[in-house]
Amino acid sequence: MSLYDESLKLHEEYKGKLKVESKVPCADAHDLSLAYTPGVAQPCLEIAKDPENSYRYTGRGNTVAVVTDGTAVLGLGDIGPAAALPVMEGKALLMKRFAGLDAWPVCLDTKDPDEIVAICKAIAPGIGAINLEDISAPRCVDIERRLIKELDIPVFHDDQHGTAIVVLAALINCMKLKKTKPEDMKVVISGCGAAGSSIIRLLYSYGFTRIYAFDIDGCVEPSQAENYNDLKKELLNYVNKDGVHYASLAEGLKGADIFVGVSAPRLVTKEMVETMNPGCVVFPMANPEPEITYAEAKAAGAYIVGTGRSDNPNQVNNILAFPGLFRGALDAKATKITESMKIACSKAIASLVSEEELSPDHIIVSAFDERVVPAVAKAVGECARADGVIRK
Amino acid sequence: MSLYDESLKLHEEYKGKLKVESKVPCADAHDLSLAYTPGVAQPCLEIAKDPENSYRYTGRGNTVAVVTDGTAVLGLGDIGPAAALPVMEGKALLMKRFAGLDAWPVCLDTKDPDEIVAICKAIAPGIGAINLEDISAPRCVDIERRLIKELDIPVFHDDQHGTAIVVLAALINCMKLKKTKPEDMKVVISGCGAAGSSIIRLLYSYGFTRIYAFDIDGCVEPSQAENYNDLKKELLNYVNKDGVHYASLAEGLKGADIFVGVSAPRLVTKEMVETMNPGCVVFPMANPEPEITYAEAKAAGAYIVGTGRSDNPNQVNNILAFPGLFRGALDAKATKITESMKIACSKAIASLVSEEELSPDHIIVSAFDERVVPAVAKAVGECARADGVIRK
Repeated sequence: MSLYDESLKLHEEYKGKLKVESKVPCADAHDLSLAYTPGVAQPCLEIAKDPENSYRYTGRGNTVAVVTDGTAVLGLGDIGPAAALPVMEGKALLMKRFAGLDAWPVCLDTKDPDEIVAICKAIAPGIGAINLEDISAPRCVDIERRLIKELDIPVFHDDQHGTAIVVLAALINCMKLKKTKPEDMKVVISGCGAAGSSIIRLLYSYGFTRIYAFDIDGCVEPSQAENYNDLKKELLNYVNKDGVHYASLAEGLKGADIFVGVSAPRLVTKEMVETMNPGCVVFPMANPEPEITYAEAKAAGAYIVGTGRSDNPNQVNNILAFPGLFRGALDAKATKITESMKIACSKAIASLVSEEELSPDHIIVSAFDERVVPAVAKAVGECARADGVIRK
Repeated sequence: MSLYDESLKLHEEYKGKLKVESKVPCADAHDLSLAYTPGVAQPCLEIAKDPENSYRYTGRGNTVAVVTDGTAVLGLGDIGPAAALPVMEGKALLMKRFAGLDAWPVCLDTKDPDEIVAICKAIAPGIGAINLEDISAPRCVDIERRLIKELDIPVFHDDQHGTAIVVLAALINCMKLKKTKPEDMKVVISGCGAAGSSIIRLLYSYGFTRIYAFDIDGCVEPSQAENYNDLKKELLNYVNKDGVHYASLAEGLKGADIFVGVSAPRLVTKEMVETMNPGCVVFPMANPEPEITYAEAKAAGAYIVGTGRSDNPNQVNNILAFPGLFRGALDAKATKITESMKIACSKAIASLVSEEELSPDHIIVSAFDERVVPAVAKAVGECARADGVIRK
């Protein structure tokens, strides 16, 4: 039986993956008089006096809404909110499994950014944080930014930043191995969608200042700005600072030190990798089929290769980031996830590979490493306090 | 320690009452490849082909959203969505405790009926049913009716119909004890809000055709129709069919056979009950302090007295209705809750007191009677099938 058939069977057998349970006793009438009427009036009144008490007397502070409109689900595209539900249940399950969070899917039957923003704002009083999921670009960027601005609970679009955080974590360790500095690296990114644009911003924030980006229309360059949408225009703040024109991705890769692909299968050939600088780093992460396979990239001389796949070394897996990130943000009473909290998250993940362990095929820890969530949560919380983005 | 203090302590100790758990194994990478990517793509694709498959491969068919705007919480009034959360968690807990349902609070930071309707419609693809809760009248009636019309999942406002269903159940057994028929009874209702207006409609549907209703402005009568809002105007289809003018509730109670109060404490005196017909039924259900106490009503000659309190005989408790109602509706694939499904629910609850057990102080079963939910669910499901309000 294939993995897909096995998964279908599992989903049918269990009828979904989540259940709600009571945390409190509810055996008899007395139990219910405490958990429900009349006793429950007391926590209600305490919260009415001060909404901050909602974190004290309810599950709010451990609750994440996993919100989608089903427009960009896995590699399946716009399959709609009902069909997105198995993924959202899965995401909620990962939140529980890795970080003890109580997450719940909210699958929205609207693609209108104004409506999605309005709904997220409306449901906010009962939840601790919002994980946006599988919303297509560029709407996802706009939606997330508006919510971050207008809400005082953490909002995080994992498809944008989850991969970016783990890519940066892996690159931090690559820099250690290569004994070099980010500003000296020529970085080429393939893909400027949700993940690609976040990777560009985060790498730039960290210090990678020589970034060149490519998408289906070729090299992102200042001379073409007038043809770009707002999101792509904004990328010009971070990429191609010397205004170079590359005729193709192949041209751009010549003399590059780092390649990060979040685009499409088989865009990169062995020959292209051979034109990169000695000791180059290649992260082809198109899913499930990468821009170039691990074996091919290695054979072409890449020093370090990371992919999204669990059957190759160096799996760049966003499970390393979001559970600890939400855990840390909620525990620290953070009101938002800042750029520096994401970098703190990357550094924390990177730090879990010791100098002795570090090697070209071991630049990043496994998602099942039990140190990950505590380390990430601690770093993210400390950074939130340092950034002053916490509730009183 | 008072019940209220004890409840506050419980809520603080457990930090809320609900948790999410996984129903499927998630120990290792293989488990996750089935529950999440890549395997999860298969149930997604099956649902994309046919949304009905969302009931087959996800928890949707066992999921109830408990939706509130926090405008009419318990007896506390408009305390807002965050302060309503402990009640919604409690409601979700009762859904689990009594009917095995996975319910989740949705506390909305808007009072606009259009927005509440739009949000409920938007979240519908991921849930099996909607329980509206603690939304103030008359907005709650409008919101529920629009959702019933526009959605193909069951929508039920418990504050309106929960009490109505259990009142009817109790009255069905009163009729058996009194050996009389509903059409022969003069019924007086005090309170025309969410619960009162639903009680009036349901009793009328069942056959109580001689109903008189009172609210803070006095007797509801045709001659005053021009002063009424839409909801109250509509009640004239069910009450005061002979166009009588009663100067007061006291006048209306003279010669009445049944009193049902969902209004305010201490509105009914012993003297007023003494003017009712011999063998009269008195259900003073204002909460926590009734229109007249059980003891006073009995002393004034009432044959059967029921209240909302657990410390008196005959507790008219809506926990008897909603868990089984949702269980039955979801199991039967119902697309709505019809008036006849509510009556089926009342009859099922009434039937659980045998003729031998039936007495003036035992007209209704306890909420902890384990037969309640299966009996209600079966009756509601059969009625949904008979009414033809089920998915293919």
